[in-house]
Parts: sequence; structure tokens; C-alpha cells
Amino acid sequence: MTAQFKPAKRWPVAILGATGAVGQTFVRLLANHPWFEIAEVAASERSEGKPYAEAAKWLEGTMPEAIGRMTVLPTDPARVSAPIVFSALDSSVAGTAELAFAKAGKLVLSNAKNFRMEPDVPLVIPEVNASHLQLIDKQRRERGWTGAIVTNANCAATVAALALAPLEQEFGIDKLFMMTMQAVSGAGYPGVPSLDILGNVIPYIADEEPKFEKEMFKLLGRYENDSIVLPSMKVSAQCNRVPVEHGHTIAIAASFHTRVTPAMAIDAIRAWKGDPSSRSLPSSPPQAISLTDDPSRPQPRRDVNAGNGMTVTVGRVREDTILDIRMVAMGHNTIRGAAGGSVLNAELLAATGRLGSA
Amino acid sequence: MTAQFKPAKRWPVAILGATGAVGQTFVRLLANHPWFEIAEVAASERSEGKPYAEAAKWLEGTMPEAIGRMTVLPTDPARVSAPIVFSALDSSVAGTAELAFAKAGKLVLSNAKNFRMEPDVPLVIPEVNASHLQLIDKQRRERGWTGAIVTNANCAATVAALALAPLEQEFGIDKLFMMTMQAVSGAGYPGVPSLDILGNVIPYIADEEPKFEKEMFKLLGRYENDSIVLPSMKVSAQCNRVPVEHGHTIAIAASFHTRVTPAMAIDAIRAWKGDPSSRSLPSSPPQAISLTDDPSRPQPRRDVNAGNGMTVTVGRVREDTILDIRMVAMGHNTIRGAAGGSVLNAELLAATGRLGSA
Amino acid sequence: MTAQFKPAKRWPVAILGATGAVGQTFVRLLANHPWFEIAEVAASERSEGKPYAEAAKWLEGTMPEAIGRMTVLPTDPARVSAPIVFSALDSSVAGTAELAFAKAGKLVLSNAKNFRMEPDVPLVIPEVNASHLQLIDKQRRERGWTGAIVTNANCAATVAALALAPLEQEFGIDKLFMMTMQAVSGAGYPGVPSLDILGNVIPYIADEEPKFEKEMFKLLGRYENDSIVLPSMKVSAQCNRVPVEHGHTIAIAASFHTRVTPAMAIDAIRAWKGDPSSRSLPSSPPQAISLTDDPSRPQPRRDVNAGNGMTVTVGRVREDTILDIRMVAMGHNTIRGAAGGSVLNAELLAATGRLGSA
Amino acid sequence: MTAQFKPAKRWPVAILGATGAVGQTFVRLLANHPWFEIAEVAASERSEGKPYAEAAKWLEGTMPEAIGRMTVLPTDPARVSAPIVFSALDSSVAGTAELAFAKAGKLVLSNAKNFRMEPDVPLVIPEVNASHLQLIDKQRRERGWTGAIVTNANCAATVAALALAPLEQEFGIDKLFMMTMQAVSGAGYPGVPSLDILGNVIPYIADEEPKFEKEMFKLLGRYENDSIVLPSMKVSAQCNRVPVEHGHTIAIAASFHTRVTPAMAIDAIRAWKGDPSSRSLPSSPPQAISLTDDPSRPQPRRDVNAGNGMTVTVGRVREDTILDIRMVAMGHNTIRGAAGGSVLNAELLAATGRLGSA
Repeated sequence: MTAQFKPAKRWPVAILGATGAVGQTFVRLLANHPWFEIAEVAASERSEGKPYAEAAKWLEGTMPEAIGRMTVLPTDPARVSAPIVFSALDSSVAGTAELAFAKAGKLVLSNAKNFRMEPDVPLVIPEVNASHLQLIDKQRRERGWTGAIVTNANCAATVAALALAPLEQEFGIDKLFMMTMQAVSGAGYPGVPSLDILGNVIPYIADEEPKFEKEMFKLLGRYENDSIVLPSMKVSAQCNRVPVEHGHTIAIAASFHTRVTPAMAIDAIRAWKGDPSSRSLPSSPPQAISLTDDPSRPQPRRDVNAGNGMTVTVGRVREDTILDIRMVAMGHNTIRGAAGGSVLNAELLAATGRLGSA
Repeated sequence: MTAQFKPAKRWPVAILGATGAVGQTFVRLLANHPWFEIAEVAASERSEGKPYAEAAKWLEGTMPEAIGRMTVLPTDPARVSAPIVFSALDSSVAGTAELAFAKAGKLVLSNAKNFRMEPDVPLVIPEVNASHLQLIDKQRRERGWTGAIVTNANCAATVAALALAPLEQEFGIDKLFMMTMQAVSGAGYPGVPSLDILGNVIPYIADEEPKFEKEMFKLLGRYENDSIVLPSMKVSAQCNRVPVEHGHTIAIAASFHTRVTPAMAIDAIRAWKGDPSSRSLPSSPPQAISLTDDPSRPQPRRDVNAGNGMTVTVGRVREDTILDIRMVAMGHNTIRGAAGGSVLNAELLAATGRLGSA
Repeated sequence: MTAQFKPAKRWPVAILGATGAVGQTFVRLLANHPWFEIAEVAASERSEGKPYAEAAKWLEGTMPEAIGRMTVLPTDPARVSAPIVFSALDSSVAGTAELAFAKAGKLVLSNAKNFRMEPDVPLVIPEVNASHLQLIDKQRRERGWTGAIVTNANCAATVAALALAPLEQEFGIDKLFMMTMQAVSGAGYPGVPSLDILGNVIPYIADEEPKFEKEMFKLLGRYENDSIVLPSMKVSAQCNRVPVEHGHTIAIAASFHTRVTPAMAIDAIRAWKGDPSSRSLPSSPPQAISLTDDPSRPQPRRDVNAGNGMTVTVGRVREDTILDIRMVAMGHNTIRGAAGGSVLNAELLAATGRLGSA
Repeated sequence: MTAQFKPAKRWPVAILGATGAVGQTFVRLLANHPWFEIAEVAASERSEGKPYAEAAKWLEGTMPEAIGRMTVLPTDPARVSAPIVFSALDSSVAGTAELAFAKAGKLVLSNAKNFRMEPDVPLVIPEVNASHLQLIDKQRRERGWTGAIVTNANCAATVAALALAPLEQEFGIDKLFMMTMQAVSGAGYPGVPSLDILGNVIPYIADEEPKFEKEMFKLLGRYENDSIVLPSMKVSAQCNRVPVEHGHTIAIAASFHTRVTPAMAIDAIRAWKGDPSSRSLPSSPPQAISLTDDPSRPQPRRDVNAGNGMTVTVGRVREDTILDIRMVAMGHNTIRGAAGGSVLNAELLAATGRLGSA
């Protein structure tokens, strides 16, 4: 892929679960997209048949007017004609629905956890593991469908994997301790009640820690012969909810298969450009990782919109007293860590010819 | 010490730095204390000579009227007559001032960092290391004074040391990773500007991490022959500020000199009573550690006032994927972690006969 | 009623809607009540048959153990034996349910809006309008039941009516402008989503303004010949939600039937003691209204717990540039403005002999 | 002025008080301005001589690099060569400093309160009262200088005056009650301590109410014969601080010299375009006022950035129970209500030929 790629016309796309918080982020990111055009929005029965403007309680900024006038379709592949669907479905329904759309020949870009760990389903962050997209061939072959499911990772795992990819690729991670402070938007809408989180911290997010830990292996794994070879590391993650709107902050301590100093880590992060195929996509930020030397950064409120929410900011790279280094990573959980990640995956598929022509 | 200890009359005490946030907490905790009586309040030149009610911008609840009418004295041992002084002085002045008071024969109970790590100064949490008070004899002998300086620890270190004392004493800590989410009151008043912390996280507190790490060793150390034998462990701490009023939350991962399961850790914590001399003091909570099995606790807003702010709440004791166990500890940073800790230390000195008679 | 009233034994009471936020506040306030004893807890079908500890997600402090072990009953007068029921039912079900309990001979102390404006139902704040309880006789006579429904007002109306009662009673209100900043706990649990209110203000609370305005008239009305004579005033209220946990703050501007200066208003508030029958009840605060001269008070976080949440704090009484005076009132919305108000009403009924003997 | 105005080259400008919160907003707004170029930054002695990047603790987004490299100048007209200066000075120093700059022939665009109410100093919101700029002639004539001072109003007054200008101009305001909920950024940096405002409301802002009330008269006044004829209205304002980062929300009730219905008010607001000279300036928003029919809007977090922070959003226009109408207005206090207002004033001066050629 090069900056020169430009589709002849825009691919029509549909958004599943379009009325929820992540669905709305899809609407915002795709409303003026150069390669994709929102052709359809779908949601649950409660919203079906209503104008989108009425079905969705809009959460940020101004709803694009043209989308507001669309009629919400049911989550049914027979009723959705776009060949590409972005899924913001809740995991309680994503399992069945995404399967149905893939069977019906659609390319499904999914935010849900349901298929992420399936051995034939790519779990992709373009800069980190673009090669994993090759699993699509295996998936189609084995499942006998022309559609496909491509997933992006848990929001915390996305931020951490991006921040750590340069170090994993250069040195190989041995042990990894992570402690998160996660924004409330990660829980969707209505999500976290204000009485639970105003002036408070909740040191627990249901099911988050094992998911976060497991996905790190697949994200940082190496594609080889139709499968993903997992890195030989140990990962411990503790997850906390904090009263922040957007932006997951992660305190990290890590050791590597070789002794790594902070200076070495900083050099590796600075030098890292990510997979060449991931550069110059419409949603690619100028830098996938921004390294700050302000000792009090990254901070969600101040850094979350770096690179339009697609840049992960890393700071406080310093020596650890037990392992090699400590550092802090922060990224936008509903953009880079959710809808924006799916859009970037779709762009990568387009730029690498996997979407055919629009 | 037994529950029967009851002084014939109350000891007169003075509060240094009485107008600041920690100073006010001293006022609240000592206003109706059964063993101590606030005889004098002292503060900086700006406040000297004013009525306390005018000099202090009162932050919580209602100022005790009798204290409000007291005239603020200078921070000068020649002007303060009480033999016992609680110091809420900032570290920028505590070094000189506390030394002066100790030289003048006063017993100084200090919250400042200045003397904590001196080899002849006890750094005490009564339940954890009451025996360290014996350092006072060495201190007096070597420094040639009749006064003394007794310190309490950094607020985060206090919470962590209390939560971990049962495990250190039963199994011996080997490696210890800690990540804090600290309340804004830990920075005093005016402290953290609201523009820095509303809806935000700051992954940095100046000078906090080395202080926290070092104090853990002394707190968990063993008194032996006039000195403290430090435990053979490794400690890594990362400190963060969150928009919480009171209550430091700490995510912990630890291994021990022997393999420890969550069940073993839970049993050890449950069985632990702390040093016998620390029980039944006026400020002793019913439980120094409260163990919760609610997976979403401890939370600062819901648990910070347990035991009138003197109980540390521990939860989520579970297996770690790298070390032995993970858990979360939370405690009140300005009560247990500051003024309340000093008061408990003074009570321990009283109950063990080290204050003489009032 | 005098301080000497002391029932021979405690009345058994039931709590309807016991698992919700207001229901939990009832549990906290009644758990160690000198005159009442929680005999039963009832809630919706979803909770029926479960132990209360399992059915209720406990929101503040520690659940009283004995209540936690109670089995949740259905909201059915045939299954509840206590003669006195505190209702924390949502208005969607309170209409039918409270009627059924009253018909079955129970005395219902209701927080719901459903019956507040019925001409034969007392809407009571003991200090303000204890005489309205006489409506019970009319209610029983006309409805032909031995039970009764006694209501307390909307949380904002309660705070405002208490703050303004001395002025209405002394001078007669002519025009009244009020603008509220209401805590999230007023919306119950889960209530306001954190994504809606973190770092935000919502200048709207559905249905609140007309309710608030109308209830002010009845609360400040005069009992006369079996009915309430409404005051001849005009009332305008604007209601806003702010990111505060507990405590509704109300900015007020008012004119009176006679010209009133700030000094006159202050004197009237200071002199006011409220209805004699309301003093010395177990939940009566030392002062129903606390007047502050700190220009930056009242503040929810600093004053909400005055009088254990039963005192309304009034400040900034000053001249208005259009009407006579301006002032600010603040009170605890789930204690004084909800559960605590019901409990105080029940105590007033007990102390005035309307409960018979326990 | 028309959209066609385009200066031959950009005017060099200086920013006074450039390191503070409002100064930084000036830097952000002017960094890529089509008509102005930041030539110099000045601040207090503490910052003088340092690179701007070092002197300023940057609060939002990323500091423009070129500005970061500038050396901070003293606040001295002899050291500043730009003919146009934007002043973000604190009122404690603005009186002397702005006078000195005007005497030295500079055009001073001031955010400070010091000169706002001087009879020969324009207090301008371009859409509302562009004609007031004619006071400059009087000012120069009477003060005998070639410089000038042009001020913009208090942040709350700016939001209110914009929202009310259509109604004042169409109907004439008679009585006006306003109650504000103001963001913490209005107090500058460090400004409001987090311990004062987290989860809290402060019903008081020192000196704000009289300033707000008085400025409303001048802002809505009519230029006539070298002076401003004040409208014959009565204004009452109550000011509150809330835990919001940016965006002042104002609840308004108003009556007019003629009876006005909500429909009439809505029509007047919709039809209003503001002074023709104010349209199509580089910082002019598409709409000076955006009218919403969502009953829960405007909200600071959701609407504050409308029109890049230059649009005031108005909602909930409805009948009042005492006066004619009620409504809610919200605008960005540090953009429209401070730095952005000054920049718009400067653009208006440029477009109307009052800056000469660059």
C-alpha cells in the first residue's frame, strides 16, 4: 500500500449496533470518509424502522444530518445490502449476528470479543500485525464462506499492544505487569452509573483482565503457516475504572529476553514505524506512538485526541527496580481502541486489495 | 497495654502547621480526644497572632469552636509549652523546626518525610512495627536530647505496609509490584488545581515513588539491637493521581519466599491481629485490615471511612499470572496515612509508658 | 409531643422498594431506630424470595447484617404484616401499591409523587406544616379505610420549603425564583449515566419543575377546615443536574407582601423554631435550618451532612437587585429530601399519638 | 466589511500575560491566524528571558513549536514592538500595564475588567454592539493618545449578552434573572483547588455578580453621540462554580417591555444575524447563536465547542410562570468569553479599517 491508493469510488458500508456508543463513533468516523460511505444503519428491534436521529441518543458533538434521516434496519443480513459491515454489537448478540453476516458473504469488521480468539480469525492492529490478515484465507477455506470476520482487540489491549510492539519486536518481552485506569466510555452507554464512579475508583472490570491478558499474546504473535505463533512471555494485568470520559491509561513494568535500558527502549520506540502497509491510510495518525518527555504525561484529558484519537502516547520510560523498565501508555479507547481500530482495519483491507473494487 | 489504660489526666499537646489540610485533620481528631488535649496551635508567620478560625480556611465539617478561638503561635519551641507536638509541617520547614522542638525536649510526632529514614528515628505503624519505638532510646542517647522524633510513613506506604504486614510476617515477601491511584487530598491544600485533575489521571507524583519504595523496607523491617533489619525483598511502585477526594487505592502483585496461594494469603490476613500493644488504643479501629469478598471493592468512596478512616480495606485477593498473588488495598490517606497515624503513634507511646504521666 | 415521649416498645415497620437507593437509605436510617424496628423488606418480583443482602446492590457504607439476612417479600399487603410501611416505590408502581396497602389498613409513609397533591393526603415537613396531618381524618372518612397515606415532598421542594418557611410565615412570599443544582442521587440507582454527567451540567430534569413549583404551594399552605389554603404567591423554578453525589443546592430570589431587608430575613430565619411538635423527635436535627455567614457556603460536599443530613443550610442572604432578597439553600436530597423526611413524619405521627401503641 | 477583506500581509501582534491560561488560549487561537502573526510574547518577571516553552505550563493539546521557542519579554511597551497587543493580564496589573501600552501608541485588546466600564472605552461583542467601537475616537481625543484600549466582557456576561441580544433588540428587556453554573477554567490556572470543587458546587464567585450585572447594561446599550445609552432594564445575577472544565451555563428568566411568548422569542433568535460587520470574520462562527430543541441541551461537555467555541447555544425556551420566558444559554468561557472574543474584536477592527495596513 502506498499513499497513492485511491479507490475509484467509495465502498458502501453498514453499521451494526449503530445506535450505541461505539456505533455512534463509527458514524462520526465514517460520515465523511474518503473510501467508505455509510449506506445503512442497523440496530436492535427497539430501534428498527425509526429514523436514526430518533433511535439514537446522540452523545458527542452533532449528529451528521444525512445519517439522522436514515431508517434503522434490523440486524439481519437479508435486509442489509452493503458488502462491508462494521459491527458495534454487544457480545451477547454478536456471536450469532456476525456469523450470519459472514455466512451471507459480508466482510464483518467486529469490535466484539466473541471471535477474537478463534484460530482462524485475525485480531488486527495494522501497525502491529498486518500480516495476520492472511488468516482470512484460512477462515474462508475452513468455514466455506466468502465473507469474513476481522476483529480488533479489547480497548486496553489495543493501547498496550501498540505501545509495546516496538519493544516486543526488538527485544522480546519476558514478563509484563500492567495496571490500567480505564475511562467510563469503555463500558458503553448508559454503562457506569454516576453514583458508582463520581469521585471514586472501581478496582474491577468484569471479565476484563483475562481478556486483556490473552489478547496481548495473539496481538503480539507472529503469523506463520496459517496460524499465529504466540510470544513466550508472561502477562499480568489489573484493571480499574476511573472517572475519566475517554482514554485508558496503563502503567507498565516489563522485562525482556535481553537486558533493556530505558535509553534502549526509547530508541526502539522512536525508531519504530509499524508495518509499512499501515502507513498513509486515511485514518493512520502521523505517529502511531507519540513519546513524551514531560514526566507528568501522558494524561487522558490532555493527550487522548493526539492523532485524532489514533495515536497512543507513551511517557515516563524509566528503569524499574525489579524488571528492566517501567513506562506509561495512554490511548483513546473508543477511537483507537474500538471504532477507529475497525475503520483502520478496513482501510488496510482496502489498500491491500482485499476488498476488491468498490 | 490493655484496654484498662487510662491516664489520670489528659496530656496537653500542640499542633505545628495547624492551619493546613493535615493540620486541620489533627484538630478534628484531637478535638475530643480522651488522652490528649489541644493546648496550642502553631503555624507560619502569615498566621501568627491571628485567631485560628481566621487563619485557617476550614475544609471539612465544622471547626471545633474552642480551637477556633485559640491564637496561632509561631513555630518556635520557646513559645510552645506543650511537651508533645504533632507536626503537620511541610518538608521544606520540618527539617529545621522538628529538630528544634526535639532539642528543646519535646516529643515530636511527625508527618514529614525529613527524618523518616534516619537510622535512629522510628517510622511506625503501631500494628505493624511497634517494636521500632525502641529506637527512641538510641536517638536520645546519640543525639543527647530528652525530646524525640517519631515519624509516620508516606500515605501510600502506610496503606500498603498495613495490607502486606500479615503476608510479610507469615511468608516473607520476595517481589512486590504496586500501582497506586491516589486521592487529591494527599497533595494538601490548595494542592492539585482542578484544571489538572477533573476528568483526568496524572500518572506521576513528584518524588513519590522512591519515597514509597524505600519506606516499605523500613516499615516491614525487624527491630534488632538498636537498628532495623530490612527485609530481603524487591519493590517496584508506580504512583498516579486520580480525581478522588480521600482514599489511596493500590493494586498489588506479590511473590513470597515460599509459594503462597490466595487461600493462604486470605487466611493470613484474617488471622492477623497486629502487635498486641496496638489494640484497644482510642484510635485503634475494630479491625486494622478489613477483608472484603465483593469483587468490586475496596473503593475509596465506599470504604474510606471504615474504622473511622483507620481501617485499610483489602479485596480481590486472587492468583497472579506471574507472581503468587494479586490484591487491592485502599485506605484513608489523611487519617490512617497521616494525622490519624501520628495520633495512634502517640497513643501507643502513652499506653506503653513512654509519655510519663500527663 | 415532648422529649419525654418514649414508646413502650418499638413499632414493627416494613420497607417497600427496599432494594433501591431510597430503600437502602430507609434501611440505614431505621436499622437502629429507637421507636421503629424493621420487621420486613419488600421489593419487586425480581428480588422476591432472595436474601436482602443478595437482592440489593448496597451503595453506601456497610449493610446492617440482620437486614441482609431477611428474605425479600413481594409488594403485597397480604404478605406484609407490619402495620406501618415506608414506601420507596417508584412512581410507576406506587400508585397501585400504596393504595392497596392503605386499603389493607396500613399506614403508608410515601416518597412517591403519586398522592402528594391529592386534597385529602397530607404532604408534610414536620417543622413546616405539622398541622396538615389532620387531613388523615378526612382521608379515612372519605376513602373509608383505616389505613392512611402520608407523603413527603419532592427533594428540591423539601429543601426550598424548609429554607423559606420562616419567611413565608413571617412576611408572606409574593414572588419566588429558584434555580437548582441537583445531585445525581436524586435520580436513584443506576440513575444518571456517568457519560452524561462527568464534567458536565444537564439543565433539565424531566417533569421536575412543575412538580417542584406545585408542591411549594401545598407545603407552605395553611390547614383550615379539612383542607389546605394555598399561599398567594408566584413561583418559578428551573432545575439542573450537576456532578454532585448528595445535596441539592438552590439559588433563590424572593419578594414578599411587605418590603423585607436581608437583616429582617436573617432575623426571621434565626428566630424560627418550626412547629413545636417537630422538636426533639429522634431524627430532628439540633437546627432545622443552619444559617452560615461564610460567603462561599452552603456547599454540598461540606454541609450536606449537617444534622445527620436533616439540617438545611442557608447562606448568602443578601439584597436582590430586582426583588427583596437573594439567598442559597442546600440540603441532603436522599435524607432530609426523601427517606429521612418519611422517618421524621412517622416519628411525628408516633409522638402525636396517631400510631396508637406499638 | 465583506468576506472579501483580506489584508496584504499579516499584522504582527504581541500577547501580554502569555503564559497563563487565557494567554495560552490566545497562543492557540493566533498560532495560525490568517490576519495576525504572533511576533512577541510577554509575561511577568518570573518568566522574562526564558523560552516560552519553559515559562508556560501548557494546559491543552500541543504547544505550537515556533511559539515555544520565543523568548518571553517583559510587560513593557518599550520592549514590545508589535503595534497590536492582546492582553491576558490579571486585573491586579492590567490597570497600569494596559494604560502604558495605549499611551505608547499600541492598540490594546483587553480581557481584564479594569477599563471595561470607562465611558470612553468600548466593551464589545461584534455581533451585539459593533457600533461601540466608535468610542475609540472619543478615547483618543480625550486621552490624547494614538493607541487605544478595546475590551471584551466578563465571560458570563458575554454568553448572556449574546443569547439575549436578539430579544433586547426586538422587544426590550424589562426584568432579567440569571443564575450561572460556571466552569473552573474561568478562574484561570492554578485557579480553583480540586479539593474545593470535586463533586461539589460553590454558590459564590468573588466580585462576579455585580460585574456581570453592570456589564450587561453596557453590552446591550446603544451608541449615541459619543456615549452608550443604557437599556432601561433590571438585572439580577447569581453566580455559581461547578466541576466543569469549560463552558458557562446560564439559566435565564426574563420579561420584556411588551408581552413575549416563547414562539416570539424563538423567532427573534432564529431571525437574528448580528451586526453585519461581524459576519465572515475569520473567527466568526457559522451561527453566533445555535438554538436547540433538545430539552436536555445546551450542555457544556456536548455543546461547548460549537462554532469552534464561538457559538453560544440556547435551549429550553419556554414560558415562565412569573415573567414572560425562561431559557438556558451556554458558551465557551475561555474562547467566546475571553481570548476568542478579543481576537474577534481585533478582526472587526481590521475589517473596518481601524488597524490601517499591516
